[in-house]
Amino acid sequence: MFSYSDFNNKLSKGSGIGELMLDLGNGLEQAHRQKIEISMLGGGNPAHIPSMEEIFKAKWNELGNDPILLARMLGDYSAPQGLKEFREILAIYLSKQLNAKLTPDHIAITQGSQSAFFMLLNSFSGELESNKTFQKILFPIVPEYIGYLDQSIKRNSFTSIIPIVEKTAKHRFVYKINFDLVKDRISKRDIGAICLSRPTNPSGNIVPSSDMVELYNIAYSSKIPLIVDNAYGYPFPNIAFVSAQLEWKPGMIQVFSLSKLGLPGLRTGIIVADPEVASRIGEMSSILNLAPGNVGSFFVENWLNNGQISQFSNEIIQPFYKEKSNFALSLLDECLNEKVEYQIHESHGALFLWLHFPNHKLNSRQIYNKLKSQGVFVVAGENFFPGLEVDFSHKNECIRLTYSRSPEEVNRGIKILASVLAS
Amino acid sequence: MFSYSDFNNKLSKGSGIGELMLDLGNGLEQAHRQKIEISMLGGGNPAHIPSMEEIFKAKWNELGNDPILLARMLGDYSAPQGLKEFREILAIYLSKQLNAKLTPDHIAITQGSQSAFFMLLNSFSGELESNKTFQKILFPIVPEYIGYLDQSIKRNSFTSIIPIVEKTAKHRFVYKINFDLVKDRISKRDIGAICLSRPTNPSGNIVPSSDMVELYNIAYSSKIPLIVDNAYGYPFPNIAFVSAQLEWKPGMIQVFSLSKLGLPGLRTGIIVADPEVASRIGEMSSILNLAPGNVGSFFVENWLNNGQISQFSNEIIQPFYKEKSNFALSLLDECLNEKVEYQIHESHGALFLWLHFPNHKLNSRQIYNKLKSQGVFVVAGENFFPGLEVDFSHKNECIRLTYSRSPEEVNRGIKILASVLAS
Repeated sequence: MFSYSDFNNKLSKGSGIGELMLDLGNGLEQAHRQKIEISMLGGGNPAHIPSMEEIFKAKWNELGNDPILLARMLGDYSAPQGLKEFREILAIYLSKQLNAKLTPDHIAITQGSQSAFFMLLNSFSGELESNKTFQKILFPIVPEYIGYLDQSIKRNSFTSIIPIVEKTAKHRFVYKINFDLVKDRISKRDIGAICLSRPTNPSGNIVPSSDMVELYNIAYSSKIPLIVDNAYGYPFPNIAFVSAQLEWKPGMIQVFSLSKLGLPGLRTGIIVADPEVASRIGEMSSILNLAPGNVGSFFVENWLNNGQISQFSNEIIQPFYKEKSNFALSLLDECLNEKVEYQIHESHGALFLWLHFPNHKLNSRQIYNKLKSQGVFVVAGENFFPGLEVDFSHKNECIRLTYSRSPEEVNRGIKILASVLAS
Repeated sequence: MFSYSDFNNKLSKGSGIGELMLDLGNGLEQAHRQKIEISMLGGGNPAHIPSMEEIFKAKWNELGNDPILLARMLGDYSAPQGLKEFREILAIYLSKQLNAKLTPDHIAITQGSQSAFFMLLNSFSGELESNKTFQKILFPIVPEYIGYLDQSIKRNSFTSIIPIVEKTAKHRFVYKINFDLVKDRISKRDIGAICLSRPTNPSGNIVPSSDMVELYNIAYSSKIPLIVDNAYGYPFPNIAFVSAQLEWKPGMIQVFSLSKLGLPGLRTGIIVADPEVASRIGEMSSILNLAPGNVGSFFVENWLNNGQISQFSNEIIQPFYKEKSNFALSLLDECLNEKVEYQIHESHGALFLWLHFPNHKLNSRQIYNKLKSQGVFVVAGENFFPGLEVDFSHKNECIRLTYSRSPEEVNRGIKILASVLAS
């Protein structure tokens, strides 16, 4: 009805993440209307962990008993870069965890990590009038998070590298970074930043520390930042079944989130970067959002101070998901073995399993649609390859399956998946 | 240290809103360190109204007593366009208030109205590849909100019209829309949307209903949207001392906020528009933010259902600010009369007074700096003219002064202002 700008058309037309969020929001409702049972194995909503919910409830009520704090939290804008006192506490906690000397100036709070990545990915890709070039973000390993796919305001802002596929057991594999291809791509000198999630969403891969060091060295010597998305990782919520520890060093941009602790409704993201980068993010935040919300910061402040956030992560959240992962893996092996050709990426962490069905007559989009028609929501694999410029069989042969839901839902979903694949 | 994109450079370099938010955040801290008294008459932080804070506290504790609700609010992502049930309740409430037949599809929730305007202003300005044109946002009357100034991702995306200055009393005036100039500008056919705030931030002007109808007709016949920012206006928080009622009609985009009710820490904005626009905002939200935060929606849901949000606005918030406005106006007249040449825009609403010092030896930036050095924060007027392409004496002769602070702060600030101007 109106003339929309390229900006609007680029960002509002049928994105993968939009479809996923619609499935998540509308899937349940639609299923209720049609009175069919559903298995919501699509979205990335964290699980409702009863003991964490008790902790959240107690914290909510504690905040409610302090009228002065409450008045500030609800009634005052924070600085665009986030509350100074909260960034001071974060700096102390994260200095220890990341073996770095961080100050509040290294930190910027955002309206969730999705918002952080919108700012970051567009800050290091696109046009540079000053030297008439066009930079791209390099994803050194794909599949990679669906939420990045459509975040660039300019087309062709992303490029990515096919991984080495390494077999680890009869039905298991792991993706490895192909450093020869990464170095080759970097040498073209149009890369503005290297970016990866760890654990990787969707594969659950935790890129080994030695590879992180190598990536860092490549980025540092190319004078571009290494951006690491720790939304599921170290030090919180630490949904990692192998070590995900990581240091911060100058030139790195690490991003953290409260969502996978179980607080996605509070939209709180945290950027740790060189002060110049953090300050630019603060400036951008003032223009895009005025300021981040306060509730997330007040919620976790004491847990950072006394280290409980690590304790919750390691003693409650991580074991909870580890058990869920094991359950889903056993069930998949039980239901698929001898019936279907399948491979599952090693489950190092995050909430997902990444399933590969080589040479199946159905591609990932067809599997997605058949499952959806029976009330089972997964995410088709093709959405996880931002900037891929070459063919890779996995792109159309994989699905992402969330294992964080109830055993009943997971059980039902996997049984229907097996029947769809075997029929 | 890195090569930043044009996007980053455009959005992170010394914006007016960045300076304002820094003053707001750091001003207090700095003043405390230097042990000087300060008067924070710069920012747009709403006042802490004791009876509203009681109401907020009760609501916080009520939410904390409902574990099921709490678990959803903290632990579940909403749909990108906002929670369906909240949009249903909003549709019913706003249909009545705006005399329109609204459905949930007309509504999108955002992370505050600043975020809504980032999406909207860039959706209707900038390049259109499809027909090789470049659209601009037209501000039909300036001064206009400082927060718009730097929001476009492309330079030269805004244009604006000098108002008619109408004298209303010895030291009072009001700005009026110059419709001849507006129509003339529209006829160049490069305008993508018309946008204004009502009450206007900074002038406190409430553009009359008849002018709103005329603007709507101009926009509608040009097939462009009329965007109205009701952050301070009708129906909530209704900080309006003359009627600010407004209807919604197809082709309009109205934006509302919970911030000036006293809840800026919850970052909740509301867009009411044609379903196509609202749906595009939802899509963009999924890419920029995944989803809006939940706390704001849950906070006001019942108050929309039972109409209390209007009652709070009309019986508590509006009279509170009316008294503050009267106090500041009397004091200004008392301190400035016979000493300085001055004019004050009629105070129709919002939290600000807009002061004009014609022919003064100090320009607005110099007044700002002299006041700041004495611990009095105001905002220099030059930041409130987005897209102005011609000279207008008011641009360098005005300041914005917030009257929402304590009588002591306002009193001290105005006395220092008078002494700076008279010296």
